[in-house]
Amino acid sequence: MGVRVASSWSFTRRAFLALTVLLFGVPGAYAQQDPLPSWNNGPAKKAILAFVKATTEKSSPNYVEPNDRIATFDQDGTLWTEHPIYAQATFALTRLRAMAPQHPEWKEQLPFRAILDGDREAISKFSERDWLEIVAVTHAGMNTDQFQALVKQWLATAKAPRFDRPYTDLVYQPMLEVLHYLRQNGFRTYIVTGGGQEFVRVYSQKIYGVPPEQVIGSSIVTKYQNTNGQPELLREPKVFFIDDGPGKAVGINLFIGKRPQAAFGNSGGDQEMLQWTQAGNGPRLMMLVHHDDAIREYAYGPAGGLPDTHVGTFSDDLLALAKTNGWIVISMKDDWKRIFPFDK
Amino acid sequence: MGVRVASSWSFTRRAFLALTVLLFGVPGAYAQQDPLPSWNNGPAKKAILAFVKATTEKSSPNYVEPNDRIATFDQDGTLWTEHPIYAQATFALTRLRAMAPQHPEWKEQLPFRAILDGDREAISKFSERDWLEIVAVTHAGMNTDQFQALVKQWLATAKAPRFDRPYTDLVYQPMLEVLHYLRQNGFRTYIVTGGGQEFVRVYSQKIYGVPPEQVIGSSIVTKYQNTNGQPELLREPKVFFIDDGPGKAVGINLFIGKRPQAAFGNSGGDQEMLQWTQAGNGPRLMMLVHHDDAIREYAYGPAGGLPDTHVGTFSDDLLALAKTNGWIVISMKDDWKRIFPFDK
Repeated sequence: MGVRVASSWSFTRRAFLALTVLLFGVPGAYAQQDPLPSWNNGPAKKAILAFVKATTEKSSPNYVEPNDRIATFDQDGTLWTEHPIYAQATFALTRLRAMAPQHPEWKEQLPFRAILDGDREAISKFSERDWLEIVAVTHAGMNTDQFQALVKQWLATAKAPRFDRPYTDLVYQPMLEVLHYLRQNGFRTYIVTGGGQEFVRVYSQKIYGVPPEQVIGSSIVTKYQNTNGQPELLREPKVFFIDDGPGKAVGINLFIGKRPQAAFGNSGGDQEMLQWTQAGNGPRLMMLVHHDDAIREYAYGPAGGLPDTHVGTFSDDLLALAKTNGWIVISMKDDWKRIFPFDK
Repeated sequence: MGVRVASSWSFTRRAFLALTVLLFGVPGAYAQQDPLPSWNNGPAKKAILAFVKATTEKSSPNYVEPNDRIATFDQDGTLWTEHPIYAQATFALTRLRAMAPQHPEWKEQLPFRAILDGDREAISKFSERDWLEIVAVTHAGMNTDQFQALVKQWLATAKAPRFDRPYTDLVYQPMLEVLHYLRQNGFRTYIVTGGGQEFVRVYSQKIYGVPPEQVIGSSIVTKYQNTNGQPELLREPKVFFIDDGPGKAVGINLFIGKRPQAAFGNSGGDQEMLQWTQAGNGPRLMMLVHHDDAIREYAYGPAGGLPDTHVGTFSDDLLALAKTNGWIVISMKDDWKRIFPFDK
């Protein structure tokens, strides 16, 4: 503003430089910047960089048009910590305990009694039907706005075990870098989670940079109701869609209608998503996060250590399938310099 | 390429002009260009222009962030011709007739017999259950790729009655302009149709500039199957989701998770979508296309003329509701200079 253009020559030069930057960017500066600074230089990092190069360089024989660049990510255990219990399950249990005084009958009634008694062993053995009953009483019977408000309130106060931090702190810094790097290269990044779609949508934009319309998850039935000109969507205690296992391939087709070029998971519940992704033409990137770092996070699955009580586990079968199919297993211990954004 | 830069001065001047254009565009040129040239200067056109101004000008008290700009459009009767019968219904009937030689039992069986006999009166009285049976045999029993191929093939050869042109020619030029104008102003445009989601996705990008992931529609169940390492999604003869009436509000929340600022429809099946849209804060645009042009297209609904045999009709009740709520009724006769892109 206070700078005067001293001469025609200097103006020309500055205009030319400005033009160059506007038209071509600053290739040198970008090339030198590592887009994945929290990744060690191993096969996993190399595979990600090679995949982006192969699909986005115009000269590549496998160039993918920007409109078709899709990458899908499981959430629990892939983007944030899932051990010892999913965040959303903790939300459900907390809410159930808060509701208990209004429901004295729960003291005599399974699965509720186990939760109120803090019976961890019984909880770890809950069937899908048990969890559905819990979801029915804690996630339904209200409208969509009320549910979102409950989730927001819980996220603001709840602390994850061991780390004593908000759950949304426990996202994996290396995966945030992958999300960002793919988006910078024209990919649309989707979360494809077995967890609740409306639950994850509350924080997905803020935490992952993924907008609500790019969150695909499990859902319950909602019902439109218009009372005195005030429309609302009521959440009903009835399952609508289970976005897990084969449901992830179904959900991707239902919500996107395009096949991803890249898919990231960490358990058997992600197997079909990776298979569906791989079945397309051209280069595809399939990766599985392996929790083998007991010191910085948790070790379970093939790495042994903690028992893996989750529905979708990283079994030895999954490891064998990964080898057969050329899926890349990410070792948290070896591939990641940092686990969480708060790590030094 | 053959042009030499003659002097430092001329280079400076050209660089400066290039910079100006890059940085600021050519405001004069754009301001003079009418974004809706096929619309007459009536209340409908004015409402669209005022809405875009109110939601996208930074200085507006009702400015909407680009990420939240959502506009939803019904398809049949709103974006293209639906009379005398939905394009997709014709696809189903054509396919059913082609399959008939392999199904001699259909000759004795309703609803199939009515179609094979060409019994228009019986067809016009089909119940929802009848249509579901027709959809089951014509849209299911194949995988998603096979279904898309069938739709493509049909679109390439089928001709719409009266106009004797491909169905995809019968899109409304003024609505194409609205779609384009909203997108140019940062809105994401979604199709929210009672028709089949996978059917519309086949041509939505090419015809409307709307990508598959922004098409929300009715759907049948798909099942993931992996045979010898070849995964596919099989279409089953079972309804999964009916995206019509209250289902449009449910579908918008399910697929987008955001409330639209603008919604366009033409029948009772769009009523809840418009109510759901209007219930948000700030300026909202709700519009209904009224088919009152028997000369250039068809006249039905309150304009009388042809009987409206569709499931979702533009009834007198809907007209009254539009008046009460301030929804704008688009008169095809008065508001549109051109109906189809091929009109002079």
